[in-house]
Amino acid sequence: MTALQDLLAFQTETEALGQIAGRLGWDQETMMPRGAAAQRGDEMAAIESVLHARRTDPRIGDWLAACDGETLSQVDAAKLRHIRRSYDRSCKVPGDLAAELARVTSVSQGAWAEARERDDFAAFAPVLARVVALRQQEGQALADGGSTYDALLQDYEPGASAAQLEAMFGEMRPRLVDLRGKVLEKPTPKGLAGTFGEAEQLALASKLALTFGYDLSRGRIDKAVHPFSSGSGSDVRITTRTSPTDPFNCFYSTIHEVGHACYEQNIDAGFALTPLGQGVSMGVHESQSRIYENQLGRSRAFTGWLSARMQEVFGDLGLPDAEAFYAAVNRVQKDFIRTEADELQYNLHIMLRFDLERALISGDLPVADLEGAWNDRFRADFGYEVPKPSLGCLQDVHWSIGLFGYFATYSLGNVYAGCLAEALRRDVPDLDAALAEGNTVPATAWLGEKVQRHGGLYEPRETITLACGQAPNAGPLLDYIETKFSDLYDL
Amino acid sequence: MTALQDLLAFQTETEALGQIAGRLGWDQETMMPRGAAAQRGDEMAAIESVLHARRTDPRIGDWLAACDGETLSQVDAAKLRHIRRSYDRSCKVPGDLAAELARVTSVSQGAWAEARERDDFAAFAPVLARVVALRQQEGQALADGGSTYDALLQDYEPGASAAQLEAMFGEMRPRLVDLRGKVLEKPTPKGLAGTFGEAEQLALASKLALTFGYDLSRGRIDKAVHPFSSGSGSDVRITTRTSPTDPFNCFYSTIHEVGHACYEQNIDAGFALTPLGQGVSMGVHESQSRIYENQLGRSRAFTGWLSARMQEVFGDLGLPDAEAFYAAVNRVQKDFIRTEADELQYNLHIMLRFDLERALISGDLPVADLEGAWNDRFRADFGYEVPKPSLGCLQDVHWSIGLFGYFATYSLGNVYAGCLAEALRRDVPDLDAALAEGNTVPATAWLGEKVQRHGGLYEPRETITLACGQAPNAGPLLDYIETKFSDLYDL
Repeated sequence: MTALQDLLAFQTETEALGQIAGRLGWDQETMMPRGAAAQRGDEMAAIESVLHARRTDPRIGDWLAACDGETLSQVDAAKLRHIRRSYDRSCKVPGDLAAELARVTSVSQGAWAEARERDDFAAFAPVLARVVALRQQEGQALADGGSTYDALLQDYEPGASAAQLEAMFGEMRPRLVDLRGKVLEKPTPKGLAGTFGEAEQLALASKLALTFGYDLSRGRIDKAVHPFSSGSGSDVRITTRTSPTDPFNCFYSTIHEVGHACYEQNIDAGFALTPLGQGVSMGVHESQSRIYENQLGRSRAFTGWLSARMQEVFGDLGLPDAEAFYAAVNRVQKDFIRTEADELQYNLHIMLRFDLERALISGDLPVADLEGAWNDRFRADFGYEVPKPSLGCLQDVHWSIGLFGYFATYSLGNVYAGCLAEALRRDVPDLDAALAEGNTVPATAWLGEKVQRHGGLYEPRETITLACGQAPNAGPLLDYIETKFSDLYDL
Repeated sequence: MTALQDLLAFQTETEALGQIAGRLGWDQETMMPRGAAAQRGDEMAAIESVLHARRTDPRIGDWLAACDGETLSQVDAAKLRHIRRSYDRSCKVPGDLAAELARVTSVSQGAWAEARERDDFAAFAPVLARVVALRQQEGQALADGGSTYDALLQDYEPGASAAQLEAMFGEMRPRLVDLRGKVLEKPTPKGLAGTFGEAEQLALASKLALTFGYDLSRGRIDKAVHPFSSGSGSDVRITTRTSPTDPFNCFYSTIHEVGHACYEQNIDAGFALTPLGQGVSMGVHESQSRIYENQLGRSRAFTGWLSARMQEVFGDLGLPDAEAFYAAVNRVQKDFIRTEADELQYNLHIMLRFDLERALISGDLPVADLEGAWNDRFRADFGYEVPKPSLGCLQDVHWSIGLFGYFATYSLGNVYAGCLAEALRRDVPDLDAALAEGNTVPATAWLGEKVQRHGGLYEPRETITLACGQAPNAGPLLDYIETKFSDLYDL
């Protein structure tokens, strides 16, 4: 065995253990008896401890050093790039700090949930302050004297920088704020009427999953409080949820998770259980879920097909025609919650969080002042008051578990999806004819070929650039949103 | 931290990882997408490799040595006894042999399933010969010059010996063969008539699980091809199955697995994730599943209650009265399959396997001659011919995955259950009155207090001796079976 072979064999075992940890997370949200929570905490801690020890195993450093200067294939070079990045990161963070972060974030989520339940930000602030302080320390350890925030960003989007994101958001914000103002002056389209049975929703959600190419022989669909996709390779599971009055929630969260899941399922099988065998970044992952959900799933062509399927199942939907159905799917409303936002307003929610979390990490914004800062910024961008923190700064779990640097990847995913959709429509001119028949194959095959199969072979921006033939930028997404909503709202 | 604390902390993490491996096994039989099998193999190999490394970690030897001569509490002494036994065992087996056993048994089960499907013992014989050879080597490594077979037995029933089991079976065989002959001369009681809906069976199975004390807040029931119980502490899951014409299969396998699961659920919570936090041996485990299933569940009193519940759900069962229902539950028929055998014939199936597997391990019986030897012995004990190996020596998975020394624990469990039932009826004279009302609490509370809560605190025979007030022996079981079936068959 050469050093390279030893290293890759060791890594395969680590990847397999990582898959196991992920499946435990899936089990916790879908199957675990409620009385098992405390024991599960010990189990998760045990496997995370094994994974941490493997990621910092000094043999990795020796193997990497032994590979230096060797001529490597493109694939092996990419694997080593991922392994080296992970190893360097793990070695930079002192063991005490990593343990303390794990300890604090294991309880801070519960404190957040309780504070949100009681609408009491002050009760959560000291806990959040501790999480921020630890992530500041971690970011500084990772930054080697560079930007703390940029160092944290790398965990989710390797190669991204705050400066780049700031420029991107600087281009997006005025155009979206302007469009939002104009749209909200118009009458709100009618929504769905009626109640929608759970079994029927789940059956149609399964049909949608298959329609978008999800392979159920290598996955499964279960119910969970929050929809998610989990796992890589040949075991990629998704969850969905239902609401008796809002079946779109079920259907579009299903399509969204199918986008994530198909990315994982369509990665080159030869990359399985290697560092290349999973989506390359949060941003690229979100580009797949978003293009499935929005540019394909919320298109006029596809909603026409979906409207007919829903009528077959549910009868009269309370909407006069397919055009009204399309308007209902895409209607823009005043609301406070990011996860329920439409395509137009979604990125405004992200910019707010991006600016506030940078201020938290830099120290410019004391945690105690977060609620006020949130509410001020919301008023400025959305034009109305946040009535309570559960509709404001306590709505998302992310910060409570230390995810600083994560939010921006949602918008990056939207921007990437905009670029991909433009290139897709160029390469597949008759796309709408297929979508109108519920045929997503021309789109999903293109994404599989251009993006998904590569897994972690290229860097995130490189992945999108190769697929689109140009570097990613916000222009295509903004053009798409302006065209779509100007048309829908007769602007 | 003292050496003892270090050792116990290390062990807790190992136990947690063991629980994870067990839950992966549960997932594989209940939830896993069929296309995920190959990847799951890699995942199982990875966690088993971690567990093997931990079980042979030389620090355990150092910690144990540092604890030598220390005054320990009863509980700590028991923990160390388990850890030392596991460590000594793991160190005696050369790594190459352990790896080869894992490799061979990971594929031999598939070869067995295929051979059984095709009724072709010759195709399986070379694979089985390899498994036997490896287990012989392992047994020799473990035996330190003592009995190879006894060394293998210790994996399932610490403290047991072939000599002891031989004496036990020697007492049982003539009495059971004699009783069997007499019973089968009598007319066979009528069975259930009709078809039985799956949803109704599963609902009644859940009700039975609760009736026998299964705590669903720390467990769950799913369907699987083969019923099993899995997990310890606060996450103990069971599976069941249904047959449209045989609801007893569903109900009695559920009660059986509930016996296993309640044992795990009722262990002292302070023992969780320690070596004491799980059933102490296969034999004691089977004693709990068997007493729930047979001495309680198949009693005249309880079947009276069950008969009424089944009539509520399914209407007419085609049986005139509760006495006919009791006879149907307990009817003795000519059959070939161990897992479907009644209380009377079950142990005859085990003795056959016990004798044959000892001959395989000693080398007295070449694997190529197994089919003939099986069929000869079956004819001798049961009086008729085995028509094909799927009804004979290919019916059980055990040997294909290297489980030699396991079968006897089933009969040991029956013998222990006989002793416990005798003591239970002495301590709880009005037991039948409770069972007739579907109230198992007097029985299950007694078992919880006398057996289950102790987990691994005492040795297996010691556990039963303390519960019964005398050393376990086959007498009570034989008396119980002879009385029950003489009464049922008017002998």
